[in-house]
Amino acid sequence: MHVARLSLSLAAALALSAPLSFDAQATSPIMSEGNNGVSAAAMKQADILREAALHDETAWHVLESLTTEVGPRVAGSEADARAVTWMVAKFKALGFDKVWTEPVTFPKWVRRSESAAIVGASAQPLHVTALGGSAGGIVTGEIVRFATLAELEAAPAGSLTGKIAFLDYRMERMKDGSGYGPGSRGRSRGPSAAIRAGASAYLMRSVGTDDHRNPHTGMTRYDEGLTPAPAAAVSNPDADQLARLLKRGAVQVKLALDCGWDGEYTSQNVIAEIRGRGKPDEVVGIGGHLDSWDLGTGAIDDGAGIAITTAAALLIKQQPMRPLRTIRVIAFANEEQGLHGGRAYAEAHNATVAKHQIMAESDFGAGRIYAITFSESGRDSAAAKQIETALAPLGITPATEGGPGPDVIASAQNGVAWAELQQDGTDYFDLHHTPDDTLDKVDPEALKQNVAAYAVFAWLAANASDSFGSAPKAAETAR
Amino acid sequence: MHVARLSLSLAAALALSAPLSFDAQATSPIMSEGNNGVSAAAMKQADILREAALHDETAWHVLESLTTEVGPRVAGSEADARAVTWMVAKFKALGFDKVWTEPVTFPKWVRRSESAAIVGASAQPLHVTALGGSAGGIVTGEIVRFATLAELEAAPAGSLTGKIAFLDYRMERMKDGSGYGPGSRGRSRGPSAAIRAGASAYLMRSVGTDDHRNPHTGMTRYDEGLTPAPAAAVSNPDADQLARLLKRGAVQVKLALDCGWDGEYTSQNVIAEIRGRGKPDEVVGIGGHLDSWDLGTGAIDDGAGIAITTAAALLIKQQPMRPLRTIRVIAFANEEQGLHGGRAYAEAHNATVAKHQIMAESDFGAGRIYAITFSESGRDSAAAKQIETALAPLGITPATEGGPGPDVIASAQNGVAWAELQQDGTDYFDLHHTPDDTLDKVDPEALKQNVAAYAVFAWLAANASDSFGSAPKAAETAR
Repeated sequence: MHVARLSLSLAAALALSAPLSFDAQATSPIMSEGNNGVSAAAMKQADILREAALHDETAWHVLESLTTEVGPRVAGSEADARAVTWMVAKFKALGFDKVWTEPVTFPKWVRRSESAAIVGASAQPLHVTALGGSAGGIVTGEIVRFATLAELEAAPAGSLTGKIAFLDYRMERMKDGSGYGPGSRGRSRGPSAAIRAGASAYLMRSVGTDDHRNPHTGMTRYDEGLTPAPAAAVSNPDADQLARLLKRGAVQVKLALDCGWDGEYTSQNVIAEIRGRGKPDEVVGIGGHLDSWDLGTGAIDDGAGIAITTAAALLIKQQPMRPLRTIRVIAFANEEQGLHGGRAYAEAHNATVAKHQIMAESDFGAGRIYAITFSESGRDSAAAKQIETALAPLGITPATEGGPGPDVIASAQNGVAWAELQQDGTDYFDLHHTPDDTLDKVDPEALKQNVAAYAVFAWLAANASDSFGSAPKAAETAR
Repeated sequence: MHVARLSLSLAAALALSAPLSFDAQATSPIMSEGNNGVSAAAMKQADILREAALHDETAWHVLESLTTEVGPRVAGSEADARAVTWMVAKFKALGFDKVWTEPVTFPKWVRRSESAAIVGASAQPLHVTALGGSAGGIVTGEIVRFATLAELEAAPAGSLTGKIAFLDYRMERMKDGSGYGPGSRGRSRGPSAAIRAGASAYLMRSVGTDDHRNPHTGMTRYDEGLTPAPAAAVSNPDADQLARLLKRGAVQVKLALDCGWDGEYTSQNVIAEIRGRGKPDEVVGIGGHLDSWDLGTGAIDDGAGIAITTAAALLIKQQPMRPLRTIRVIAFANEEQGLHGGRAYAEAHNATVAKHQIMAESDFGAGRIYAITFSESGRDSAAAKQIETALAPLGITPATEGGPGPDVIASAQNGVAWAELQQDGTDYFDLHHTPDDTLDKVDPEALKQNVAAYAVFAWLAANASDSFGSAPKAAETAR
């Protein structure tokens, strides 16, 4: 709070005192003058960008176009290819200087059908969805409830033979989404724990904070050496129902999943650039992931990220002076099933780690950004401080806790500096990985605030005279 | 507002001045003394009932039991029979004096499967549900949008040949639910209008106020002489999506419904009584409907009505003095598909119209009751005024607009007086006829307020010395 107020005053002072100079040939006013960060003129331009973004409809139009015309675009599906085509065409139509694709190959998982029901005296349907990566199969068995993953992991081998393990853990609603960690561990590790105890199938309360009949999908993986068993999530109200019925006696459930792995698929990272005027081979990388789960239309996850970063880059292009460095927007392929796009990008660009000024991915919906953090290497740079100052009028304060966006993790491991623009995720897990992830759930005003933040961030990072500390990590790149 | 404040003062004054007398043999203190309505002692007892209800958990337990153990209970299904068995057992276990069933026969409609998708360049699934009574069939065609039912009804014969009519009317959110009339007309009349214009199928925006991927089901009927075509509702976000796509060009939809009529079924109205001490053959009838749609577990529609009225009657039984007249709780069969239970009740009890002091059905969820109205015949009775007085502390004010609950309509047509305890339905159509109609959507405190209102109403109506004007209607009964 203290820091925020201080930054706000600083921003106002700078805006009032900064001399204006927009000679496209003269780079010095935009370059840093003495503070080794960002020039006063660039800071002034950031103010202009910020205000312009709050009245810019581009992100909404991009998001509407993607979620409407392409709709759900699960990795490896026919819609994945349509999304790539759409993204290339959209970048070109919007006037980016350069647009290209880079291949991303991954195993393809297919959901064909899924259903479940309580059988017996209280027969009734359950709303389920297969976890991504689940094996198919039809299983009927008594469910055995576990309140926590730890309890399930403590179940002795053979103790669940012929049974369906039911993990009844409800994730916590938090602004920073930190309830997702404990929740999603049940999704990633639960199936293997169930199989080790002998269970025929795995059923879990969705990793979600809502009270709708929407199961939340998301990936799981089976530990090596285990025979995969069907794994699915039930909606929160369905989990409540199972818990109530279990208080009355044994509960039999029939689970039928038709899904599984089906060869390989090659999708594309779609990349577009606004070329820098002074150091065009140095890049500020922003973006989101182009794939979505199949249940919704991928508005908050992650059409919003694509729309926000595309609109931010475009706003920068529309200013009278180009940024010093290149702004690169990356629409990553297949984040959902294993960060494949981010990994492919890191591998393809490993030779130019030092040329990456900084990277930031928007992949936590479209709630307002309230904090920013930088990788340790860049946190104390003059440019970081000036970015924090320029973001303060948007209600954004500096933070120390955080991490790179999912598709930036691999690049960060290679040594690329990162920033995280932290969004309010209070409602994110009401919608995440459900049919309800649709355009109407996005607040257009919050979306604009995101664009403003990314435009300011990218612009200032691209014009900074100092670096955020990107440097190849020999040990890491060998992994 | 003025009336409410006046009633509140009156209630307080009566409560303070009323002599207490609970001799089960002496009826005079409970009977009216001079005002031809309800005695001061009965009014005092109403205050006690009202307060007791606000701490009574019975309704919640009944509602939890029904929605959990029986779950969805669509008329004619296996679960319909389970619901009847459950209701009989529950009434008996709760200690009602008399429990019986009366047959209700109706045509049986069955939903087997339903799906829809946009096909072509923006291929994506749609969340649909067949309208009750719909014919099955698989249809692919271009959709033609109509903003209102009037526009669709004006479409010339042959103008929709080979097309799917799409009614894109969104119902309005209103406290009194009055947005449902215009909305549900599109459901009842839309399919016939579409067929008359030559359409191969009918698709409508759900009659609902939510923004979830839940289609709302509900009955439709085809006009005589028309060949039924598949008729379904899409969720609000899906309707938004169709509307957005239509702005971009033609939209092809594939609709596949497997459903239809399948013979007859005989269910039961389940009836229970708290026997009156003085005029046991005269009855105050309260209740709800036992059937639900199949998509949810029928918590707000209408498990709540069953729970509220059951708990209210039971609370009355638990008082030191029995009511003068009998309190009858009626769990009506198959309201959803044509008010069959209410019609059967009216027919079976047509000879005792005059013995029905008054009837009231709770069938608008579990939101707080904010108003009460009576049929014209009883609106100005002294008892009605005193009921209004006793309900005022619950925030309930007299109203003149209103009508009998759906299962009371047929009895009202036969001449039975009715009351309507009007619930706040602001959120009702977020859930109505969807998978989201589940227990967690019910506010336990609002449920208790409903029980309090029904207990006070039934108790005072049962003890009134005057009538609400029930009288056989020769002309009406001949219908």
